[in-house]
Amino acid sequence: MSWKISSYIMDHAQALIDESLFFTGNGYLGVRGNLEEGLPEGQKTIRGTYLNAFHDSVPIPYGEKLYAFPDTQQKLLNVIDSQSISIYFGEGVEEERFSLEEGKFPWNGRYLYFDKGYAERTYKWISPLGKRINLTFKRLVSFCEKEVFLQHLEIESDNFQGKIRIVSTLNGDVSNYIDTGDPRVSSGHAKLLKVTDVQQTEEISYVECETSYTKFKTACAVSYQLSKPFNRFNDINTHSIVSEFVFQLSEKVTFEKKSMFVDSLRHGEDLSTAAFLIHDRLADKNYSYFSTKQEAYLNNFWNDADVEIIGDSDLQEGIRFNLFHLLQSTGRDPLSNIAAKGLSGEGYEGHYFWDTEIYILPVFLLTHPKLAKGLLLYRYSILEQAKNHAKNMGHESGALFPWRTISGTECSSYFPSGSAQYHISADIAYSFIQYYLVSGDFSFMEEYGAEVLFETARLWADTGHFDGDCFKIDAVTGPDEYTCIVNNNYYTNVMAKYNLHWAVKCYHLMESANPSQLAQLCLKTGLNIGEVQTWQQAAAQMYLPYDEHLGINPQDDTFLHKAVWNLTNTPKDHFPLLLHYHPLTLYRYQVCKQADTVLAHFLVEDEQKIETIRNSFDYYEKITTHDSSLSSCIYSIMASKLGLTQKAYDYLIETARLDLDNTHGNTKDGLHMANMGGTWLAIVYGFAGLRIKEDGISLQPAIPEKWLGFRFSIQFKGRKIQIEVSTGQTRITLLSGEALSIKVSEQPYHLETGTPIDHH
Amino acid sequence: MSWKISSYIMDHAQALIDESLFFTGNGYLGVRGNLEEGLPEGQKTIRGTYLNAFHDSVPIPYGEKLYAFPDTQQKLLNVIDSQSISIYFGEGVEEERFSLEEGKFPWNGRYLYFDKGYAERTYKWISPLGKRINLTFKRLVSFCEKEVFLQHLEIESDNFQGKIRIVSTLNGDVSNYIDTGDPRVSSGHAKLLKVTDVQQTEEISYVECETSYTKFKTACAVSYQLSKPFNRFNDINTHSIVSEFVFQLSEKVTFEKKSMFVDSLRHGEDLSTAAFLIHDRLADKNYSYFSTKQEAYLNNFWNDADVEIIGDSDLQEGIRFNLFHLLQSTGRDPLSNIAAKGLSGEGYEGHYFWDTEIYILPVFLLTHPKLAKGLLLYRYSILEQAKNHAKNMGHESGALFPWRTISGTECSSYFPSGSAQYHISADIAYSFIQYYLVSGDFSFMEEYGAEVLFETARLWADTGHFDGDCFKIDAVTGPDEYTCIVNNNYYTNVMAKYNLHWAVKCYHLMESANPSQLAQLCLKTGLNIGEVQTWQQAAAQMYLPYDEHLGINPQDDTFLHKAVWNLTNTPKDHFPLLLHYHPLTLYRYQVCKQADTVLAHFLVEDEQKIETIRNSFDYYEKITTHDSSLSSCIYSIMASKLGLTQKAYDYLIETARLDLDNTHGNTKDGLHMANMGGTWLAIVYGFAGLRIKEDGISLQPAIPEKWLGFRFSIQFKGRKIQIEVSTGQTRITLLSGEALSIKVSEQPYHLETGTPIDHH
Repeated sequence: MSWKISSYIMDHAQALIDESLFFTGNGYLGVRGNLEEGLPEGQKTIRGTYLNAFHDSVPIPYGEKLYAFPDTQQKLLNVIDSQSISIYFGEGVEEERFSLEEGKFPWNGRYLYFDKGYAERTYKWISPLGKRINLTFKRLVSFCEKEVFLQHLEIESDNFQGKIRIVSTLNGDVSNYIDTGDPRVSSGHAKLLKVTDVQQTEEISYVECETSYTKFKTACAVSYQLSKPFNRFNDINTHSIVSEFVFQLSEKVTFEKKSMFVDSLRHGEDLSTAAFLIHDRLADKNYSYFSTKQEAYLNNFWNDADVEIIGDSDLQEGIRFNLFHLLQSTGRDPLSNIAAKGLSGEGYEGHYFWDTEIYILPVFLLTHPKLAKGLLLYRYSILEQAKNHAKNMGHESGALFPWRTISGTECSSYFPSGSAQYHISADIAYSFIQYYLVSGDFSFMEEYGAEVLFETARLWADTGHFDGDCFKIDAVTGPDEYTCIVNNNYYTNVMAKYNLHWAVKCYHLMESANPSQLAQLCLKTGLNIGEVQTWQQAAAQMYLPYDEHLGINPQDDTFLHKAVWNLTNTPKDHFPLLLHYHPLTLYRYQVCKQADTVLAHFLVEDEQKIETIRNSFDYYEKITTHDSSLSSCIYSIMASKLGLTQKAYDYLIETARLDLDNTHGNTKDGLHMANMGGTWLAIVYGFAGLRIKEDGISLQPAIPEKWLGFRFSIQFKGRKIQIEVSTGQTRITLLSGEALSIKVSEQPYHLETGTPIDHH
Repeated sequence: MSWKISSYIMDHAQALIDESLFFTGNGYLGVRGNLEEGLPEGQKTIRGTYLNAFHDSVPIPYGEKLYAFPDTQQKLLNVIDSQSISIYFGEGVEEERFSLEEGKFPWNGRYLYFDKGYAERTYKWISPLGKRINLTFKRLVSFCEKEVFLQHLEIESDNFQGKIRIVSTLNGDVSNYIDTGDPRVSSGHAKLLKVTDVQQTEEISYVECETSYTKFKTACAVSYQLSKPFNRFNDINTHSIVSEFVFQLSEKVTFEKKSMFVDSLRHGEDLSTAAFLIHDRLADKNYSYFSTKQEAYLNNFWNDADVEIIGDSDLQEGIRFNLFHLLQSTGRDPLSNIAAKGLSGEGYEGHYFWDTEIYILPVFLLTHPKLAKGLLLYRYSILEQAKNHAKNMGHESGALFPWRTISGTECSSYFPSGSAQYHISADIAYSFIQYYLVSGDFSFMEEYGAEVLFETARLWADTGHFDGDCFKIDAVTGPDEYTCIVNNNYYTNVMAKYNLHWAVKCYHLMESANPSQLAQLCLKTGLNIGEVQTWQQAAAQMYLPYDEHLGINPQDDTFLHKAVWNLTNTPKDHFPLLLHYHPLTLYRYQVCKQADTVLAHFLVEDEQKIETIRNSFDYYEKITTHDSSLSSCIYSIMASKLGLTQKAYDYLIETARLDLDNTHGNTKDGLHMANMGGTWLAIVYGFAGLRIKEDGISLQPAIPEKWLGFRFSIQFKGRKIQIEVSTGQTRITLLSGEALSIKVSEQPYHLETGTPIDHH
């Protein structure tokens, strides 16, 4: 049960949302769930195919350009469209084209299968002239052969046995989607890809394109398989190849279109050779072959990653939907990461944010560490650019990771809620530390993590300053984008403290474990012990704002002095506030777009007493709009921590079904990846209360009233551990690996394979 | 003495600066001091003619456009070029064109006469072939006929008596200047004017153009007068008319070109009729006529406005230069104001800022009140737009004047140092109050001022909030653009307090003096007495930050907690900082672009004890770069107030000669108008210590060591008063008007006509 999502609605508005919801991808290639047969002229669609990190670099326009504002930004490109397949039934004046706009549909259904890894559309169609046709479109993007997008079409009819024409297009004349009314979507530079080569061999249609500025190339090779003999006609244009397949329908026919995408970032400059080689290797492999491999891959994935929820099918659907799409969107090579919308749409222009480190990476870290490691290697690969960015932003040394980027340079043109979010550097450092705590892999730290920790620590040392006994950090923006450029943002300061603390610790660990590699690293980075001492002092004296009167951590130095936004009196249609108020209006009030201090209390929970955490939760909850999709999941986790299980559940529901129910109204622009990770966090860190710290694993399980139980497993230092929570009982099973100590609700246990712990 | 500036340098760099320094204008029309004969291909020039407020409205590009960011901005246009006159001597292969690039110059000089109102270039030229020619170019832009730009050319020769060709061009194919490297200069939309009509009558050359977006029209009609018989040939193109005048040189010849500029904002849609009528009316008026009228006009101006400085010719030149250019740049109709660069260049795209109210208006208020009144009427004319702007910026009511504008809508695309400078509304209110205090004209307040005060007071009431006993204003930017979006900027708060206080006072004054007009105004604005009570309370409880420890007013709530910028260690070539550091870097430090708290201490001096003012001056002086041209003059005034006369003098010199010596390096983009007003302020409010408050006039004279004396006069409530300060003595003479009380260095005097006061 609950291994798929379904849609039976055929209206235009839902179609646009379904394009995102039913997207198929594999971390490299993503194809939106557009209709093969297309749409009538004028109907809104975002027809998209994306290759992770495949971008152009376009000039950023400014009314007033100040010093070190970035000149260019990267933009994920909509690449060659191979989705189109039109089907014509009959001859002459009786010929009819299959379309959702015409005829009748006694049955229709649309599905995305999480366990099998394909999407399906199936129709019983009565054409305007009365032909009764059954059509089923299946599509998958292969997890095993990253270049492959496969479409499988099945046609049968009770009452029509005549001529069929299938017209299939491979089209390089593509554009990106623009929306001038929404700052979260691109407003310019739609057409960046130019067709540079169109070839048709006996079997293969081939179109190659080049980007306008970066001169990156991408190509798509397409081949076909039909279950019947056919005549084929190719119409080769300057931008596209249209192939027509003509045959007679008798009983059932299947038509397969295999598209193979390549690009110059991964496949070198000679793309046609690369594509043709892939084609040759896979020439005899059909849909059935790929779907078997796909299922096996997913079987393996779910074996580690599945979260089972007993007694809540809505949520069960939601969590699997989320995990599946995360898997589909996560980059597998050091060039790529996870875009804010994954590979499902063009929102935020395909940029990578802190979303990866704080909201998504933990999911893979605890289920598929290899993917997590890849994401960290991506960050390491842009370290030099982060150092340059720090220099541009006026720092003597250190690494300031870009707020939004694909290839490593800052793409944020509105710095107050962009580059000013210095915390991203601490967030990245944090994720390296988490990786170490979960994997125990110190050699990875020696090779990559230490350098990241050192350079980010340097950033904090240079950004902050000692003011009396305190180390303070001025003029940064925390996670909450409704409050920008502030002094001593609690989140930033506490994360910087953690960063500094671990940089020092890592230095000393390396000093003992591997002094020669440390010496080498110091040589490379010019690091001296004086700096490390400064970090230690800065961490120790880090100023963490605290308000005696309210017993909370103020979001920043002046946050609590501002007027409180009247959320009750704000009209419902004025949310999200950012689309209805000038930023300066928002900055003038106590109003939060998202969890900020509350997030800090989750990530670095040991810095504050539980009372402070509770008071802060109560305080900030009242002034937080959750206009960001990064918010509800954190509130769910913290509500769990504070024993507010029902509240935690309410927040979780918001989180888990955000895209499925389009609650933010912009699912058409792509799925909210961070929020998808957040669902998992809210269950694992929230209800199960999992924490992994230096002293090991602990749990603090709770269960929403509605649920009978929930079950998931995690990877920890080479072990696989299964956690099953039901009302009044938690069972922990070591599925593999060495015995370990574990705490459940503060009670220590010794866990061995074959002997589950039952905690009551 | 010192009634002109001179230039004898003929290099290319100086030529670009001289284009600004030697510009001629009359508040409506401004013509840069470009060379009639042009420049060699590739030599940098900003060839410009401007009509005050004549603009196009162009889209503002954004990388990320947030809510209520302005869609368009106005841009002062470079209009039709009528400056070009080329002169050819000789025939056939012996023909030579006059150019500064060729031949020899035994003598050359360039002058701008402040008393006569014209610019002159005069040359003794030996052509490459040895022709010895004397040429004098004179030009004036008439103060009496605002449409007229007149060029007068005198040619004579000792050794050449042959053929002369004068080729004169009227050219509509013009562009604006762009510079992508300097945020203070436009970076786009160079070509906005399109030629729509070209006509040549027997006498008149006529070119008409239209703007691209606003569809405003402008035209120029040109006619000629020569002292010799000539043959004329007209070459009429799609964009220009080139007229060639051929004659024989004997002794001396004069050539006059009269250009008449009109535009659809002032002259209606039928521009050719308007221009031809002006031409007909002035057909028989030649250069001598205009220059006589010009001198009479200026005689009158200097009679009221001159500041004489005895013993300091550099400064004497500087102050007259400044006053003359202010006169040339000040708009005389309700459509126009004073652009940041006047009519001398394109820096800041011809926008009007607070510069007018705080730095320039006082000059006219005390010397030519009619011009000051016009400037206030301009602000009144955009009140409705300011109310709309406030709504867009999230306010229930009130008027938020745009930070930079021509036609009244906000043109600032970088709001942190643009729209966030809410103080501009208080600055404008302040200038209405000053007008009242100096003129005593309460009927002007009833008709215009009160409404401005009420709507700006509303803005403060809506922007601020009561926090305990204090009224606080959050998330605004003060004058200092190196510190943006702060809470309780001292300057803003104290100016808002003054604004609120005077709104209440004005309400009560009207209640007594003219209750029916008040009732009408309340009806129009929906004002009720409850609001007025709130203003009173907000003014009374306005929070004015004060630091006990330092005994200063902090610039804002957190300014003093930041690290202090190390100005000593900042390389000299890193100034102005804004061109070398990202704004976020600047925001992180205690570093000021300009006077902020110190300016507040000048404008509203009675709010603080002199010790606080002194401490603040000392504190902020150390961290102020004066990267803004609005700064040194204020430091000069405050140094005078604090008895630091030598320091005041040093700041004054910087101020007075900023453009003459190109100390900010960007005089080529236009003259710094506010700074020019600041020079006058530094003398009158600074050294003379003039203050005009509700209880009347006072002076606190001081004199720099170098000076023997200085003398100026002011207008005050229908009187004309002359102030002469020399070492150890101040003489005050009532030149006209009723007797009054006056204080000199705290000592009260009774001043009558015919009986000067001598204060020792």
